[in-house]
Amino acid sequence: MRILGIDPGIAIVGFGFIDKQGSRLTPVQYGSIQTKAHTDPGERLKDVYESVVHLIDKYQPEALAIEKLFFNRNVTTAFTVAESRGVTILAAVQKGLTVAEYTPMQVKQAIVGYGKAEKKQVQEMTRMFLNLAQVPKPDDVADALAIAICHAHSSVLTEKINGVLKR
Amino acid sequence: MRILGIDPGIAIVGFGFIDKQGSRLTPVQYGSIQTKAHTDPGERLKDVYESVVHLIDKYQPEALAIEKLFFNRNVTTAFTVAESRGVTILAAVQKGLTVAEYTPMQVKQAIVGYGKAEKKQVQEMTRMFLNLAQVPKPDDVADALAIAICHAHSSVLTEKINGVLKR
Repeated sequence: MRILGIDPGIAIVGFGFIDKQGSRLTPVQYGSIQTKAHTDPGERLKDVYESVVHLIDKYQPEALAIEKLFFNRNVTTAFTVAESRGVTILAAVQKGLTVAEYTPMQVKQAIVGYGKAEKKQVQEMTRMFLNLAQVPKPDDVADALAIAICHAHSSVLTEKINGVLKR
Repeated sequence: MRILGIDPGIAIVGFGFIDKQGSRLTPVQYGSIQTKAHTDPGERLKDVYESVVHLIDKYQPEALAIEKLFFNRNVTTAFTVAESRGVTILAAVQKGLTVAEYTPMQVKQAIVGYGKAEKKQVQEMTRMFLNLAQVPKPDDVADALAIAICHAHSSVLTEKINGVLKR
């Protein structure tokens, strides 16, 4: 199964594609979509949407795993991120992907085994899970890969649970 | 100039098309997009997007006027509305519309002349501006028409200002 992890944003969107074969995870491609500052917000949303569509067409993932938003001190920024998240999910649904959402705490729990783990710990574990020489930069990219791994682990669990239920 | 006013939402999206000829405003079409409850959030975003695209294709407006979100006590709901707002703006930008955003206070100011006007007053003035027999229901539809009128009034002002600047 190929998973696209997305760390949503309007200035920068982190993305990471990983392949899951059994319990083995392989990074396929990762990076960031960056939109032009001082551009019309609608144009930036269009840029994000078109870039996500392009990435899905190119790498053909089956699932999108995306970070769920929580209350943020800067509500205006959070709304802008939510708009970008909306067009990202739209692109995924239009392309037939399943969509899974995870809170930052769920991601930390899945990667480090502790919901209040520090960012550095999550990044280091992400690097190790994917056998990377270094932590990908900027943080948005590492976060996107972490979300993809979180989904890979969760779907292993779902398969196990389904296995038990089917008996 | 034909304006599409939108009151964004995920369960219900109010819309209103009005024509502005000089200072005269005429209602063209108004109503609401309603998405199915208990449906996947991504599917609901897709429904909103496709409905807005369909409406733009059918009524060919030149501008989208949409309500700007402010802090809401229910942040989770507000994020969902922001996602829906994102796909609505995306549809408008893809179709070449100009996009204008107004806060609820700006809408009240434009319609009633007082930024803290009550909802009933705004609805009654909206009805009078458009020469309607009754206030359109549900509230989302009346709100969408109010936003469209707000933009019509603001663009009259913009034209006047531009007129002065051009001399």
